[in-house]
Amino acid sequence: MSEPLTVTDAADPRLSDYTDLTDVELRRRREPAEGLFIAEGEKVIRRALAAGFRMRSMLLTAKWLGVMGDVIAEADAPVHLVEPALAEQVTGYHVHRGALASMERKPLPTAAEVLTGARRVAVLEGLVDHTNLGAIFRSAAALGMDAVLLSPDCADPLYRRAVKTSMGAVFSVPYARLDPWPAALGTVREAGFELLALTPSGAEDFTAARPHLLPRAALMLGAEGDGLTPKALAAADQRVRIPMAHGIDSLNVGAAAAIAFYAVNHG
Amino acid sequence: MSEPLTVTDAADPRLSDYTDLTDVELRRRREPAEGLFIAEGEKVIRRALAAGFRMRSMLLTAKWLGVMGDVIAEADAPVHLVEPALAEQVTGYHVHRGALASMERKPLPTAAEVLTGARRVAVLEGLVDHTNLGAIFRSAAALGMDAVLLSPDCADPLYRRAVKTSMGAVFSVPYARLDPWPAALGTVREAGFELLALTPSGAEDFTAARPHLLPRAALMLGAEGDGLTPKALAAADQRVRIPMAHGIDSLNVGAAAAIAFYAVNHG
Repeated sequence: MSEPLTVTDAADPRLSDYTDLTDVELRRRREPAEGLFIAEGEKVIRRALAAGFRMRSMLLTAKWLGVMGDVIAEADAPVHLVEPALAEQVTGYHVHRGALASMERKPLPTAAEVLTGARRVAVLEGLVDHTNLGAIFRSAAALGMDAVLLSPDCADPLYRRAVKTSMGAVFSVPYARLDPWPAALGTVREAGFELLALTPSGAEDFTAARPHLLPRAALMLGAEGDGLTPKALAAADQRVRIPMAHGIDSLNVGAAAAIAFYAVNHG
Repeated sequence: MSEPLTVTDAADPRLSDYTDLTDVELRRRREPAEGLFIAEGEKVIRRALAAGFRMRSMLLTAKWLGVMGDVIAEADAPVHLVEPALAEQVTGYHVHRGALASMERKPLPTAAEVLTGARRVAVLEGLVDHTNLGAIFRSAAALGMDAVLLSPDCADPLYRRAVKTSMGAVFSVPYARLDPWPAALGTVREAGFELLALTPSGAEDFTAARPHLLPRAALMLGAEGDGLTPKALAAADQRVRIPMAHGIDSLNVGAAAAIAFYAVNHG
């Protein structure tokens, strides 16, 4: 049980995990370096705890004391009670979800570790948009993908906006980095996976490639706009496309991922 | 050819189409009532013109005069040249896409009109989120859906954010309102469509329903969170679900739509 302690000074060092949350550049550097991430809102905090992440501290406004009562009762971390205006002053935005938790990161598994026992994985290259990344994790969880592998330049799945968009799926879908890129794709192939690159210029129709019959399939997706890089395309076993109506450039990467995750499991 | 005219006063009535663009509530009422919508950025403006929408006026900053030169040369509407600070003062935000056009709406077709000759349509209920709505239109265009039908409480596809997220697909995919709701679903059935409601509680697996074999299929999707209402579900011919991994509540509606649009065309 942690007794909520009222904090009234925005400069109080006990609140330092929560400062300048809207400064994406700053937080992107700070959070991995300090080994923390921010869970926002009741649902996401509960999911992070359920997934075994350790809480460093919690920050909430008075009206959330009731809703979060059981979480507080079980917390072995300090709980900071603040006025809404102070929450806004510290974080830089109006925290309408009322509760934030600073959580401790776990060491990332290696690609080989997450591939063990997996049959369907997503491989993402250059996904820097947190909303797209979160949406892809949410679809991966819902559609039964076993793991997600990220190129070194992909965004951090534990960044606040990605966590929120994923509805906490970043806690349940195992993921790892593939580094160096794209050489580390060799690890995926050695684990018995066929590498299918999804690209509008793909020679073969994705459905025609019958991906659901593959014992192990790795679906490679690139960022909105540019798509997979030539070196990633060259490292793939097959280049396949989702057939598109005349005159349309491309699908949103989240939509393409959802279709690919569905088709690789249902054929 | 329209000679760009410099405007220096935020209260100038020539700029009234562009005021308070960030006030969603206000703009949602004003734009349909005044028969206009706002196209933002070079690509979207060009797509609106290509789709046959008439321009009421354009507002841009000096650095966009070159890029938009050919559009200006062909415009028969006034072109207002403003400083970036004035653009921000009028619209309420930093217009980093640099060019806005006020476009004239066309009369909406009836549901019966958009259903003529169509084989695959989406029916959306209660989609109030502009980003989700735009994303669904983008997927509908890319994946070859013939039309979109909207319940009366769906958001306006021509609202600025929906237009932007759709990448202009709201201009190319025919759409109509179904009113009264859900009685007007009768129009869809009378046009020979099987009504498939996508719902996590659906009795049958979507793939098992083999929707690609239907001569005419209408795919019903509800809003994020609540999904289709009981009355909409009751009006459907079949209730089908996209199979989901254990413990996951639901897919994002944009992801569900992409999968459904793909599967109804590819099986």
